Amino acid sequence: MHGIQLIADLHDCHCPPRLLLDAPGLESLCVEACTRHGLTVVGRLFHPFRDANDQAAGVTGTVVLAESHLAIHTWPEIAAVTLDVYVCNFSGDNTARAHSLFREVIAAFAPGRTERIEVKRGQLGARERVLDDSAPPETP
Amino acid sequence: MHGIQLIADLHDCHCPPRLLLDAPGLESLCVEACTRHGLTVVGRLFHPFRDANDQAAGVTGTVVLAESHLAIHTWPEIAAVTLDVYVCNFSGDNTARAHSLFREVIAAFAPGRTERIEVKRGQLGARERVLDDSAPPETP
Repeated sequence: MHGIQLIADLHDCHCPPRLLLDAPGLESLCVEACTRHGLTVVGRLFHPFRDANDQAAGVTGTVVLAESHLAIHTWPEIAAVTLDVYVCNFSGDNTARAHSLFREVIAAFAPGRTERIEVKRGQLGARERVLDDSAPPETP
Repeated sequence: MHGIQLIADLHDCHCPPRLLLDAPGLESLCVEACTRHGLTVVGRLFHPFRDANDQAAGVTGTVVLAESHLAIHTWPEIAAVTLDVYVCNFSGDNTARAHSLFREVIAAFAPGRTERIEVKRGQLGARERVLDDSAPPETP
């Protein structure tokens, strides 16, 4: 049950805007990244939203892992993404894998500003810590 | 994108032990609770694990919501559960719904000890807060 949860809110994403609307593309990105970083995918569910004018809107997706889960939500109208990577360390210490996966998925969106928090899970008395503060926007 | 994420680690769960092994039962519990608290379920994925002796082990599940997601993981061998409820407030303030859903799902497991954290999402400069400290085990 002991594990680590990495939480990020990504603002001012400079990636191609289409990426935030493309449910199959986001699914491939997330599933392939999980696999490449040594985590075991046991299921995935990506849901594309439509706006009031029946145009493609954001995407919500989860990848269920043997080691816990990845969850992602996109807000294309404000070029924003929220991301969670949670891995337990039941079968071994997956902390480094979680961090490398988290970094790679964040980088795909090229955010100008990022807020990240790390929460230790399953450890009584453990506390979360802020990984970094908001950074000023990067030059696109 | 603004929203709230409620995170709980539940220890010493006094619910019937079978609940932590029962993927369809957990799915019904979570989906029905989301619906009852006014959230919109757009998908669900619950995966039962088997141990090395091919016996039922824990369950990992996610409910994808129009308002974001619920994620749950059970560790029956230590009577523990981890739970995340994340709702965005795009279409209205869902904070009260998130808290009531969170309380109801936690109560179903009758945990002896609970750690809860609240994280504000999508708000630059926002910080998380601990909802409570570990409590001593309740009398079963």
